[in-house]
Amino acid sequence: MNGSSQIEILLVEDNPNDVELTLRALKKNNIANNIVVVPDGEEALEFIFAKGKYVSRVDEKEPRVILLDLKLPKVSGLEVLEIIKKDPVKRKIPVVVLTSSKEENDIIESYRLGVNSYIVKPVDFEKFVDAVRELGLYWLLLNQIP
Amino acid sequence: MNGSSQIEILLVEDNPNDVELTLRALKKNNIANNIVVVPDGEEALEFIFAKGKYVSRVDEKEPRVILLDLKLPKVSGLEVLEIIKKDPVKRKIPVVVLTSSKEENDIIESYRLGVNSYIVKPVDFEKFVDAVRELGLYWLLLNQIP
Repeated sequence: MNGSSQIEILLVEDNPNDVELTLRALKKNNIANNIVVVPDGEEALEFIFAKGKYVSRVDEKEPRVILLDLKLPKVSGLEVLEIIKKDPVKRKIPVVVLTSSKEENDIIESYRLGVNSYIVKPVDFEKFVDAVRELGLYWLLLNQIP
Repeated sequence: MNGSSQIEILLVEDNPNDVELTLRALKKNNIANNIVVVPDGEEALEFIFAKGKYVSRVDEKEPRVILLDLKLPKVSGLEVLEIIKKDPVKRKIPVVVLTSSKEENDIIESYRLGVNSYIVKPVDFEKFVDAVRELGLYWLLLNQIP
């Protein structure tokens, strides 16, 4: 999963089925192969800020996009989003919330905190795979980062 | 161009060829029909904040996405971006910079100011149309707004 080449996607997701499905959709379409998966908000922050077991990541490039679930153990997705977007260096990493929550409050709060995009996970299996493919193509091929 | 139904895209672009090409790509694929085009940064701000000739827009819904060129007459794209993203209400409107500038400074500054996405206009005609189709599908169909 890890390696010396650039990490394309940081996937922050605690549900193993959603992880499996997302990885399959990205790899099947050859969109991304270098994906790091972390299962909670605390480990996501350790990865992003190169702390704890990710301390050696300090010289690596940033991921091209972070896919962030909202309901996460330890530190919530909204807290992770807030910390990233308040940091003058890390805020340039695109963060896409990918969640099952359609709650208006979650959407409003995400935009207030500076999310780049908010996507509701489709319930239907095939539509989920389509959505992941589309968002992968958009953020890895079309969007430019510094 | 205007009308009583919801505006889907605000296109801020002074180059008539790019306007023509963007509108054709969006309409050809039935992605968006309700597009407002403004030719400079000053009119973009009047539209967004419902001032000047857009004062009657006050009760209308926000556009689902703003496509923003950087090199604009009167008020630059970066200034427009900064004003939108500093406003507690308007900052929730997704802003995609769509520009011919590949300059690292423009990319860094856009992310610092809170851009949602940064896309470099492909020089090739067909690739330009493809890029506009993809970004239209992404922001109008996949992305959720409040």
